[in-house]
Amino acid sequence: MTDIDITNQGAATASVADLTLEEKASLTSGASFWWTKGVERAGIPSVMLTDGPHGLRKQRGSADHLGIGDSVPATCFPPAVGLGSSWDTALAHRVGEALGVESSIEDVAVILGPGVNIKRSPLCGRNFEYFSEDPIVSGVMAAALVRGTQSTGVGTSLKHFAANNQEHDRMRSSSDVDPRPLREIYLRGFQRVVEDAQPYTVMCSYNRVNGVFASEDPFLLTRVLRDEWGFEGLVVSDWGAVNDRVSALAAGLDLEMPSSGGATDAQIVDAVRAGSLDESVVDASAARVAHLATRWQGTPRVAGPLDVDAHHALAREVAGRSIVLLKNDGGLLPLRAERSVALIGAFVDQPRYQGAGSSMINPTRIDSVAREVAIKVGEDLVSQAQGFTLDGSGDAAALRAEAVALAAENDVAVVFLGLPAAAESEGYDREHIDLPAVQLELLDAVLEVNPDTVVVLSNGSVVALPFADDVSAILEGWLLGQAGGGAIADVLCGDVNPSAKLTETIPVRLEDSPAFLNFPGEDGHVRYGEGLFVGYRWYDARKIEVTFPFGHGLSYTTFGYGDAAASVGADGDVEVRVIVTNTGDRAGREVVQVYTGLASADVQRPERELKAFALVELEAGESREVVLTVRRADLAYWHVRTDRWVVEGGEYTVDVAASSRDLRSSTTVEVVGDTLVLPLTRESSLAEVFAHPVAGPIVQQAMAQMASAMEGAASIMPEGVDMAKMMGSFPIGRIGMIAGDSLGPEQVDQLLAMANGAGA
Amino acid sequence: MTDIDITNQGAATASVADLTLEEKASLTSGASFWWTKGVERAGIPSVMLTDGPHGLRKQRGSADHLGIGDSVPATCFPPAVGLGSSWDTALAHRVGEALGVESSIEDVAVILGPGVNIKRSPLCGRNFEYFSEDPIVSGVMAAALVRGTQSTGVGTSLKHFAANNQEHDRMRSSSDVDPRPLREIYLRGFQRVVEDAQPYTVMCSYNRVNGVFASEDPFLLTRVLRDEWGFEGLVVSDWGAVNDRVSALAAGLDLEMPSSGGATDAQIVDAVRAGSLDESVVDASAARVAHLATRWQGTPRVAGPLDVDAHHALAREVAGRSIVLLKNDGGLLPLRAERSVALIGAFVDQPRYQGAGSSMINPTRIDSVAREVAIKVGEDLVSQAQGFTLDGSGDAAALRAEAVALAAENDVAVVFLGLPAAAESEGYDREHIDLPAVQLELLDAVLEVNPDTVVVLSNGSVVALPFADDVSAILEGWLLGQAGGGAIADVLCGDVNPSAKLTETIPVRLEDSPAFLNFPGEDGHVRYGEGLFVGYRWYDARKIEVTFPFGHGLSYTTFGYGDAAASVGADGDVEVRVIVTNTGDRAGREVVQVYTGLASADVQRPERELKAFALVELEAGESREVVLTVRRADLAYWHVRTDRWVVEGGEYTVDVAASSRDLRSSTTVEVVGDTLVLPLTRESSLAEVFAHPVAGPIVQQAMAQMASAMEGAASIMPEGVDMAKMMGSFPIGRIGMIAGDSLGPEQVDQLLAMANGAGA
Repeated sequence: MTDIDITNQGAATASVADLTLEEKASLTSGASFWWTKGVERAGIPSVMLTDGPHGLRKQRGSADHLGIGDSVPATCFPPAVGLGSSWDTALAHRVGEALGVESSIEDVAVILGPGVNIKRSPLCGRNFEYFSEDPIVSGVMAAALVRGTQSTGVGTSLKHFAANNQEHDRMRSSSDVDPRPLREIYLRGFQRVVEDAQPYTVMCSYNRVNGVFASEDPFLLTRVLRDEWGFEGLVVSDWGAVNDRVSALAAGLDLEMPSSGGATDAQIVDAVRAGSLDESVVDASAARVAHLATRWQGTPRVAGPLDVDAHHALAREVAGRSIVLLKNDGGLLPLRAERSVALIGAFVDQPRYQGAGSSMINPTRIDSVAREVAIKVGEDLVSQAQGFTLDGSGDAAALRAEAVALAAENDVAVVFLGLPAAAESEGYDREHIDLPAVQLELLDAVLEVNPDTVVVLSNGSVVALPFADDVSAILEGWLLGQAGGGAIADVLCGDVNPSAKLTETIPVRLEDSPAFLNFPGEDGHVRYGEGLFVGYRWYDARKIEVTFPFGHGLSYTTFGYGDAAASVGADGDVEVRVIVTNTGDRAGREVVQVYTGLASADVQRPERELKAFALVELEAGESREVVLTVRRADLAYWHVRTDRWVVEGGEYTVDVAASSRDLRSSTTVEVVGDTLVLPLTRESSLAEVFAHPVAGPIVQQAMAQMASAMEGAASIMPEGVDMAKMMGSFPIGRIGMIAGDSLGPEQVDQLLAMANGAGA
Repeated sequence: MTDIDITNQGAATASVADLTLEEKASLTSGASFWWTKGVERAGIPSVMLTDGPHGLRKQRGSADHLGIGDSVPATCFPPAVGLGSSWDTALAHRVGEALGVESSIEDVAVILGPGVNIKRSPLCGRNFEYFSEDPIVSGVMAAALVRGTQSTGVGTSLKHFAANNQEHDRMRSSSDVDPRPLREIYLRGFQRVVEDAQPYTVMCSYNRVNGVFASEDPFLLTRVLRDEWGFEGLVVSDWGAVNDRVSALAAGLDLEMPSSGGATDAQIVDAVRAGSLDESVVDASAARVAHLATRWQGTPRVAGPLDVDAHHALAREVAGRSIVLLKNDGGLLPLRAERSVALIGAFVDQPRYQGAGSSMINPTRIDSVAREVAIKVGEDLVSQAQGFTLDGSGDAAALRAEAVALAAENDVAVVFLGLPAAAESEGYDREHIDLPAVQLELLDAVLEVNPDTVVVLSNGSVVALPFADDVSAILEGWLLGQAGGGAIADVLCGDVNPSAKLTETIPVRLEDSPAFLNFPGEDGHVRYGEGLFVGYRWYDARKIEVTFPFGHGLSYTTFGYGDAAASVGADGDVEVRVIVTNTGDRAGREVVQVYTGLASADVQRPERELKAFALVELEAGESREVVLTVRRADLAYWHVRTDRWVVEGGEYTVDVAASSRDLRSSTTVEVVGDTLVLPLTRESSLAEVFAHPVAGPIVQQAMAQMASAMEGAASIMPEGVDMAKMMGSFPIGRIGMIAGDSLGPEQVDQLLAMANGAGA
């Protein structure tokens, strides 16, 4: 690892001590669309931040006010939907490094990414830029990417902070999230990256969170990010996310992008002069911008030119590791030698390899899957038919007939299906998860003439797979970047043994999905009504069948799992050990997953939550012990009443699994909980008071009168009715109604004082 | 109708003008558990309020501080779960009258009920006291009951106001509900009753709503109840619901019950003296209490004694109208003459006819179903076996064997299944919806020996029916009150032709239900995360199969529906006409249901919502035109941004249906919408501004620069990506970022002023 030491990142305050208020204020907004302002006399340079996250998008020229114009060529790696499916942190680190190298060559100080927003709904138009429906996968993979990029001296921008899980009305809508899902699902991935990798910058999102713009929310930008998580870097706005500049600065937003033409700098100066904003706030933000800029100034650049071939090769390797083998009945894949192959579908010649919007890279080259398959299989054994068009033009029946005929003539049909580019984009969401009807009709027709049909999918977020039972082999190709064509050929032909697994559930129907009916909201609000139950947590809790579960992915080999063992180490973390064996006949990689649960929990908890994973590479027949660490902090839930993380004690189940619905070995581990003493108050229920070691016996005695009343009532109530349960929710502070004179208000207060004194 | 004129209810303020502050304060809390305080010198009497709602529960003696002791005998009518299933407002009115008569004889001024809380989850322990998962059924039925009771001069208490949909932690938990579901689902039934029937009192609930105790929420108790709905009566606390008496009074809670021993009266006096509470607030509440009491004083009492036989006969009639024939394959029911019948199950001798808690009536008598069936079928053709015990005692195998043998020997087996009394009670919720395993095992065994098996269910809220496909006939008997035994015999033998329909969906599994995972909450909060999608609205929207849908219920005859016609009347209400024909061979009643929808709605709306219903009674072969009125107000949705009801214009679908999933005739009606002009603001989106008649053209022209940028970007973006959609959510107030100098902040403000001036 060549990580740069970033622990002294906050120490640059001194450098702005000599600046005027106007100069300091000027540092807190952009000079142009992509550049910060400098202060020449103080030696603070102007630096460039530009789009990522799966490649460098550095615009050419400066006329474009939308920020989505033509950009310099760069390697287009698989977007996060692909990279995340590898579950390979070392690979993510290498991609991060490559992004850093390309940025450094182009003098870009910060590449804007990665995005770790949770895929709350399959409909979010920007899901392809995010890693998972699960915060641990998101956080761990993104942290590795950040470390990789920052090892080159180039900064990252962790985005979009926070609860930005849709594109619809994204600049106004409030994501209304209760405290537990906010902490345990939506912030947990950000927390992981900040604590583990200290990104140079965090980018606030456009939306509101619980009514407050993320760009001006002191809870998010200061209390959570800095005070709780210890973030030492700079907070930058998403481009155009600033609503009120002075409020934003006070909340913790250091740098407004893009340029405001100086208008908001003047507002800051005015606010300080008027006494409504403390100058120390300006100092801190200006210092952070100055530090970012001067550090970049002092960072050695990677020498160009870019090694295009090497980076393309990496893109191909990553793409191969991003392809999920969903199904492979009868071992149809890899393609056996000497079999003829028909490549069918418009995506063969028009690959869909990235999503639209600010992340759109101008690739250095694009692989052709037809050429790459021909190289491996032999030109004479490969033929090709378009089958359909992406824009609806042409004669659909004729194209279909041609493709079906070709499928019938060949040993194997490989049908490339997917979403047209316009279906998935930054800026708007999808309205359904269906593939175009013309594609499904083509597939049905092909299946009628050739049972040896493979489907290869190109899509940035899940689509319904109504053909899942009918097709022998399915490759989920997501969006694979510029080398996707080569990578698909590698997997089809067995040069790469697939090892990717799903980081998002493929549901049977959109109607089954957790946020359905609560997405994308209206009237400026979206209610996160499914609470904690996002992704597999929902399908498991409601016992809903899915097409392919979270964590699922096959290999050309098979893996056996031994008995798992779990124990708590001195640091409180849980170590899980399991022996995994490659039981097939070729080398392969397996993503081992650890899920925990606490059946007896005090609070609502999903039955099973991913807490750790590891990738193990095994030769045919090889066994190896895999050791995984479940961090104690990841067992915690957010305790609403005390506003903090609490690890509940108890016997946790530990499932070692090949997917969220393919548990291979289960064990338990006894965890000692955090101490949690809740004081009794007048609102404490009788059940809580009765259970209290000090107050309980006293109240029971004092309430002799109530006891006799309860007896009388119980004799009238039907057999079995639980009087104690019926009355148990009565607050002690209102006991007078039922206890009469035997327990008056003063006695209740004395009792509470006594109980709390003893309990403290 | 003998309804008393209640329009002058608020006019009694004068009567407290001569009272001292202490006397006025004293009126605002109870004298004892059930009695208000009077002021003798002013001629204000003390009056009694006591439990209902499906019978009078007037306690004997006064020693019981729980308020659930022994009570005087009274007729136990079917709880709301039964009465509601009749969908018969005339019947509800008659039950209301009977309750009034029994109260009047016992000198009870107010009988506490009805309850119109929505059955949000099948698990709510008190569902048997409520009418439906739908607010229209709840509101219409309860309004009829209120009018019936108040026609005798006895008052009612509409409860539990509001959003009290569970028992768990009911005295602390906050029901966190978004504005639209609060208005459109949870308050709509209350609104209907208040506006149509003016109950003498409304009872506030124990729980909090969006963080504020219902007992001290000025939004609920004053703004909504009085200012919006025009409530003229008195607000009484649920017993023990007052948290802070002074805040409660200020919020609009007139009468605290039960007695506080004078402690809270003193707090009120102190607050007035200290200037923190305006004396006029005390005056208003005291006047309302005084008015209730003096009106009762002046109300002629119904002379006793109670005609026990007549009320029992009414109870039997209502019970017969409460039984839902869920299934009747092969016309197994009604029982054919000369067939021998085995009555099986513990419920035969231990009928479950009401729920536990404050509504538990001491019945005047209890029918035996065995005796009533024997009277009809002939003693020698009826035999009986216990089959199982309710408390788990006895030898289950032996009891089962005996019952199975009996079932085999007889022509028909009638198996009585249900929930033990302890399963459903005020004060706690259920944890599952399963019938006891011993009962299901018995049924399976019976089905093996006798295919002609009828199941009769006794349960206060829905249970899962895993046997629904296997049993020929099912009667959902709910809780039927004291004459349930006779009513079941009437239906089994065909003396009553069943006409009841479900007012709540019977789901396949608890996991399918809308509030699952959001019920009953924790840490003092329950999130109504399913929003508007309660009951059938959820199952329909998510396309979830159900065992029996909302609105379902069979008859021994059949009904045909003609083509529906819908038109808007001068008052704006929608009149729906349909000819219904009794196509079978016996007289019967049909519940005709009208559902509306608006596919093109501006806001999220359930596909189909009940808006009207009518009961039509037809001789065999008879046809009649049924005319139903959908009130214009019931088409409205709550418009969050302007905080008011809005009827959206458009073409509404009108489905005339025999159940929510048995649509018989569909038509449409064009409704002219309310005018809704929303001013443009700096937060208005570009899409909204472009669509504005005044601002749109100006902005489009001003944004030439942006347009060219968009063109440039569009040429780079993949084909079909919608640039306008991508940028449409950009707020006009932040246009500077993309429009550059062509549209500065001052110009934006001018533009908005111009647009709003023109639009106003």
